[in-house]
Amino acid sequence: MKKNILVIPGDGIGPEVTTWGKAALEKIAEIFGHEFVLDEALMGHAAIEVTGEPLPDETLDKARQSDAILFGAIGHAKYDNDPSLKVRPEQGLLKIRKELGLFANLRPILLFDELLEASSIKPEILRGTDILFFRELTGDVYFGEKTRSEDRNTASDLMIYHRYEVERIAHKAYQAAQQRNKRLCSVDKANVLESSRLWRETVQEIAKQYPDVETEHMFIDNAAMQLIKNPKKFDVVLTANLFGDILTDEASQIAGSMGMLASASVGESTGFFEPIHGSAHDIAGKDLANPLASILSAALMLEIGFGLKEEAKLLVDTIDQVLKEGFRTHDIADQNTNRFKVLGTAEMGKLVIKFLSQKL
Amino acid sequence: MKKNILVIPGDGIGPEVTTWGKAALEKIAEIFGHEFVLDEALMGHAAIEVTGEPLPDETLDKARQSDAILFGAIGHAKYDNDPSLKVRPEQGLLKIRKELGLFANLRPILLFDELLEASSIKPEILRGTDILFFRELTGDVYFGEKTRSEDRNTASDLMIYHRYEVERIAHKAYQAAQQRNKRLCSVDKANVLESSRLWRETVQEIAKQYPDVETEHMFIDNAAMQLIKNPKKFDVVLTANLFGDILTDEASQIAGSMGMLASASVGESTGFFEPIHGSAHDIAGKDLANPLASILSAALMLEIGFGLKEEAKLLVDTIDQVLKEGFRTHDIADQNTNRFKVLGTAEMGKLVIKFLSQKL
Ligand SMILES: CC(C)[C@H](C(=O)O)[C@@H](O)C(=O)O
Ligand SMILES: CC(C)[C@H](C(=O)O)[C@@H](O)C(=O)O
Repeated sequence: MKKNILVIPGDGIGPEVTTWGKAALEKIAEIFGHEFVLDEALMGHAAIEVTGEPLPDETLDKARQSDAILFGAIGHAKYDNDPSLKVRPEQGLLKIRKELGLFANLRPILLFDELLEASSIKPEILRGTDILFFRELTGDVYFGEKTRSEDRNTASDLMIYHRYEVERIAHKAYQAAQQRNKRLCSVDKANVLESSRLWRETVQEIAKQYPDVETEHMFIDNAAMQLIKNPKKFDVVLTANLFGDILTDEASQIAGSMGMLASASVGESTGFFEPIHGSAHDIAGKDLANPLASILSAALMLEIGFGLKEEAKLLVDTIDQVLKEGFRTHDIADQNTNRFKVLGTAEMGKLVIKFLSQKL
Repeated sequence: MKKNILVIPGDGIGPEVTTWGKAALEKIAEIFGHEFVLDEALMGHAAIEVTGEPLPDETLDKARQSDAILFGAIGHAKYDNDPSLKVRPEQGLLKIRKELGLFANLRPILLFDELLEASSIKPEILRGTDILFFRELTGDVYFGEKTRSEDRNTASDLMIYHRYEVERIAHKAYQAAQQRNKRLCSVDKANVLESSRLWRETVQEIAKQYPDVETEHMFIDNAAMQLIKNPKKFDVVLTANLFGDILTDEASQIAGSMGMLASASVGESTGFFEPIHGSAHDIAGKDLANPLASILSAALMLEIGFGLKEEAKLLVDTIDQVLKEGFRTHDIADQNTNRFKVLGTAEMGKLVIKFLSQKL
């Protein structure tokens, strides 16, 4: 199989982790005899520094021509500390999501047995959890009109949904539920928000077309609680952009660490694959970041983007092996024991590639 | 001390739990020789059924004339299942918050040692946690303009903040932090939302007036994760209406159950005290609800509303005693052991009143 892949390392720990997602793709190509043509481009703070723009035209052009994108992370402390800056890294990510029509963000909560203990949640609560989030990604308050009054004392963002936006992601989520445990929980705040009432109405309509799937509607506040109280009760979770942002980060504790979770954004054509962790400026360049989420992003690209299930499984199994042999990055090592061999970003990346090579 | 207290039982489990918050107030008055004049009024579905309105004028008038309000819960499955209904119970709660100017909602995460095991989070992660949330309560997407297009295919809610709204709650939160561990974490989504950028700018300004308090700014997605990863790192958390709704429900898992948390809404004059749990239709009328959050709401009324610290402490200590003696409602009983004496709502309420009487 021949594929064009664009790598966008981005900001903060983005470059150091993406190195290993990319290396994993190259090794997989070698093992299975695929041809992955890799290119690279700038986005976020890294792009602003060079071009003045968070998403340069060149990056967008390259993105449009590629079959899939492997992305790192976005954001920089400079902008977080100064809310008045007009050009901001995150605009790059939001724009590429919109331009490529990436309306569905899939976030599987993948639980490695070896990491059950790494979570702050009790292992007996976690064991058996298997959740797939469908987060809407190109609508909501993220993309509604923003205003700031002339005296700068009033600011607003429009939370807005159109029925077709809810329909198209609902179909995707229901279809996934049919392939899984046939349960779908739609999360909204319909007791307060009109956009959530449209969301709920629409999901209720779509649900009729999937009578084999059991539908539940839950308010976001309750969902934030149920998710850690009893994560096993969820199968597919369908939700809006903002609520999905919050719930999936929260759910990362189920997987033991954010450093272990990847996401796939899909829609009209090119898929976009990235870790769910952020740019983490505080540890950037210190060889402390966990490269496994980037390698798992590569696995999602293989599976969801290219339909290469065996290749994806090999990556996941290799990570499982690495964990079983006691290797950990800092974020997933229990500081209180000497049970683990704690590795830096590069050592962990190399180890995964080495184990992969042994499959050759 | 003489005080006029309005009791609004509301919907679902509201009436059955509020009975006990009210009984606790009466018993406290008896013990300490206060005069609490209690009246009652309708709100929510209960009010719609009788008057057609979720907040009848009579209730609002009585509320305005009272020194404090003890509220139960609001909401009903009928409206949750039919998003198209125009008159909705929650409108009553939102309106009374607005009309009484209850802009600051205080939610202390009170951790009873005895309940450390009832949480899905590991006890060693929880131990020592002490968080006070300040949730803004009369602004945000809750109160911004709502629209629905004529073809009903587009719906919106305006997320909007004015600088003074952020300022007044920030002052309250900083003042509380000064009396506590002198750390304040302000939660927003300033990397995406303009209203959050106004929020962050404003908090940065106010922070200068409280140099003895250490300020941190955190994105909501990260906060939802950190809260369960390492709850001990938080002292005062300051956030907007919607984010506060989500984070505080999530935080209820820290306390072992929602049934154990109360909140105080304060602002211009009359204070409003309520459990953070909802109306829970599924268990309403079944004698399964936990009345302790209503009794703790009464304790917050005594402490925050009336400055009666000793009286409040007696209520909290009594609940502590009840738990220490092994009494539990269903929500906080570990189903796997026979260690606990599991009580219904009324039995639990009576027991607290009995223990209180023994202090006479
Ligand atoms: C960086 C930020 C704009 C982004 C979001 O909020 O969508 C991130 O948190 C994510 O979840 O991908
Ligand atoms: C019932 C609902 C309107 C309310 C809210 O969202 O504010 C509730 O969840 C709360 O937290 O008090």
